[in-house]
Amino acid sequence: MAERRILDAVSRVYETYGFEPFDTGAFEYADALGKFLPDADRPNEGVFALQDDDEQWMALRYDLTAPLARFVAEHGDSLPKPFRRYAYGPVWRNEKPGPGRYREFLQCDADTVGSDRPEADAEIIAMAVEGYAAAGLPRSAYALKINNRKLLNGVLTAAGVTDPLQKLAVLRAVDKLDRLGPEGVAALLGAGRKDESGAFTPGARIGPAAVDAVLDFVQAARGSRGATLDRLSNVIGGSPEGDEGLEELSRIGEALARLGIGEDQALFDPSIVRGLEYYTGAVFEADFSVDAVGERGEALRFGSIGGGGRYDDLVARFTGQRTPATGFSFGVSRLAAAAAAAGAVAARARGPVVVISLDPTLMGEYFGLAGELRAAGIPTEVYLGASGMRAQMKYADRRLSPAAVIVGGDEIAAGTVTIKDLDMGRLLAQSVADNRVWRDERPGQVTAPRSEFVAQVRRIVEAAG
Amino acid sequence: MAERRILDAVSRVYETYGFEPFDTGAFEYADALGKFLPDADRPNEGVFALQDDDEQWMALRYDLTAPLARFVAEHGDSLPKPFRRYAYGPVWRNEKPGPGRYREFLQCDADTVGSDRPEADAEIIAMAVEGYAAAGLPRSAYALKINNRKLLNGVLTAAGVTDPLQKLAVLRAVDKLDRLGPEGVAALLGAGRKDESGAFTPGARIGPAAVDAVLDFVQAARGSRGATLDRLSNVIGGSPEGDEGLEELSRIGEALARLGIGEDQALFDPSIVRGLEYYTGAVFEADFSVDAVGERGEALRFGSIGGGGRYDDLVARFTGQRTPATGFSFGVSRLAAAAAAAGAVAARARGPVVVISLDPTLMGEYFGLAGELRAAGIPTEVYLGASGMRAQMKYADRRLSPAAVIVGGDEIAAGTVTIKDLDMGRLLAQSVADNRVWRDERPGQVTAPRSEFVAQVRRIVEAAG
Repeated sequence: MAERRILDAVSRVYETYGFEPFDTGAFEYADALGKFLPDADRPNEGVFALQDDDEQWMALRYDLTAPLARFVAEHGDSLPKPFRRYAYGPVWRNEKPGPGRYREFLQCDADTVGSDRPEADAEIIAMAVEGYAAAGLPRSAYALKINNRKLLNGVLTAAGVTDPLQKLAVLRAVDKLDRLGPEGVAALLGAGRKDESGAFTPGARIGPAAVDAVLDFVQAARGSRGATLDRLSNVIGGSPEGDEGLEELSRIGEALARLGIGEDQALFDPSIVRGLEYYTGAVFEADFSVDAVGERGEALRFGSIGGGGRYDDLVARFTGQRTPATGFSFGVSRLAAAAAAAGAVAARARGPVVVISLDPTLMGEYFGLAGELRAAGIPTEVYLGASGMRAQMKYADRRLSPAAVIVGGDEIAAGTVTIKDLDMGRLLAQSVADNRVWRDERPGQVTAPRSEFVAQVRRIVEAAG
Repeated sequence: MAERRILDAVSRVYETYGFEPFDTGAFEYADALGKFLPDADRPNEGVFALQDDDEQWMALRYDLTAPLARFVAEHGDSLPKPFRRYAYGPVWRNEKPGPGRYREFLQCDADTVGSDRPEADAEIIAMAVEGYAAAGLPRSAYALKINNRKLLNGVLTAAGVTDPLQKLAVLRAVDKLDRLGPEGVAALLGAGRKDESGAFTPGARIGPAAVDAVLDFVQAARGSRGATLDRLSNVIGGSPEGDEGLEELSRIGEALARLGIGEDQALFDPSIVRGLEYYTGAVFEADFSVDAVGERGEALRFGSIGGGGRYDDLVARFTGQRTPATGFSFGVSRLAAAAAAAGAVAARARGPVVVISLDPTLMGEYFGLAGELRAAGIPTEVYLGASGMRAQMKYADRRLSPAAVIVGGDEIAAGTVTIKDLDMGRLLAQSVADNRVWRDERPGQVTAPRSEFVAQVRRIVEAAG
């Protein structure tokens, strides 16, 4: 299945960057997990939890980041630092399921724990870019957009906005830039906004100068990383935190260049927020866009296919000891859907070679043939249902098998094996109008001496790809 | 980690047999799952379940078999038949955790749905044998023991035992042969048994002739599959069901021979029961034994490292429509422990090549070197912590890295790269008594021209294996 192939390809990339597979359990005591969940406003919101027989609360993990932070807080001393790991597995959200919203889905994360260098962020970004390519996305169809939380904080400090609740409201307003445009965001930054339905959302109530500063900032993206950095240095207002964010972004840019990540694949975009509130520095989001239509002709929209950032304070929520960390996460099914929309992934995996079985007394012969093919590394099965020839060929077709192997009394007497090239059969069935010709001449069918049948099948399998 | 390598190796074997990866969700509505759980006596016993916001009960899967049966019952018409799949993922048991007993563990299953041929059982058995070998178990250390439920049923029918509860009690008594020996089992088959503590277990209360017949049957294993079949034909008493079981076992034996599975790796053993009650025909259990001691010198006992069988009635519990099926399942951590006990698995995976980073102004250079190595397919990381040389070398050592790459001002001026062969360093550190020699002569350290450093590192990495 496509998910498995994607995970294999991405794992290879991540391991090439020196990340090792490391997973924690999917199901933990809730007190070890729940209150440290991403959104500090709503602990346990969206979490599936239950009481065990000892009445202790247990929870299904909500993501792969909080359990990692909990593990590092508990066992960090026994880990090499920096600790570079990747992991994939199911996570659960206690929400109403809907289109594209599942209660259980497969997530894949990479994290570096114990390095506060911006180069660690750059590496994670580079891995994401290379991972998507390995998963089959065309490079022109996606880009990582990178921002730093410290920049907006610097803008706000310079503009005199220091109240944490106001800053949170600003973050939420900025997050709506895509949907509401600059005017809508300006309203949400100021007095508030009434939507078409007449519903009123209270604003962050920062002053007009601060509103202008924030709007200048979030629209500072330019055509290259360098040009955006130049523009940002003009609009962040010169606070220490803003300067720190700029310096970090600049070092990320240098490292990305040395890692060979092009301007069009990883760009600086100050409008990127990321919903989760535990990020402390760099944040990044992977955007995917492609002209594609779904099975029913509907336009396929994508957008974010992954994201991440630096979360230097998350481990400290468990131990009080600050441990810098950065990571990236994507949903595997969503990536598979994106790859399929880009036409990058074969819709289905090829099936095995099928040894047709018609005569129960020849079962041993069938297994012998299958064994020889398997020994040559060619996936093979003996058909083990109870149907006749036509149904068996249909079965091989449904499995997208490259070849079928046929042996009956005639073949055994002659010391031969009949092999059907099923791809050629499919092709010819489409193009040959006169079905009789196709049946009579049996295109794509060869009879090979028993001693040469493995080589013959291999040729067909390799041509099928 | 060892689990991942095992799953990769086993997946390759299973795919060679024409099985495709196919998993269902880990978390389902309990009414779709709970009442169909393995042990019909105790539905929902051992299952973690919770109510969602709509007060519907949801359950964490207990194994991978019941969810497959549920899926086939619901979507079977859209699947090619026979449907051959394998899957791995976490399963959960609501039990008190203990040594070797976990609430969450990784299971790996292979199943063929829609074939009632004994050859389908034989294939599953052959895959298990080959899968264990691919996972690194020495072939001499394990064997599949195979039985058929129909045989004991035949013995009981021939002996006049027809009451289902009595038959269940017989199954449970036979399952204790290993622990209690023939006398203990005879007591449990008859009037009952008092153990050393004085506690009394009521017996199955079958007659003396039936007790003898059962004991003859469970002790019918002989040195080869053929000899055991011969012996069995003498003791099963000639009932139709017994004859059917014998015929199935005989065909499994023929197929195993054609699949190249030796007598010592897959043997017939009528004492194998398997605890689960949904099996309808062939049952098999993988036994592992090795002389090994644990970390604290304790003797390591193993025993069953996997099992399976034919469950022709399980799908019908959901739909009423009989769908024959057979499968095999093992716990991944347990197999990893067995492989480690057999000395078959390197304790830890090799780490990446580490580019030592001492001078922040050279970070770009470090990334450039790492990029070249990665492009050559060599896993590499730039050290991104904040420590000095000694700690960085120690880090590379903890990651079991094959090599460290060092570049400073001198190397850049000379156009060279210094490479440390860390395996050689470890070896020499052990063997060279005079530490000064080791320090001064820097064994295992070479300086290569920049243009040749990738080739040089590759030589070291390949030698490290």
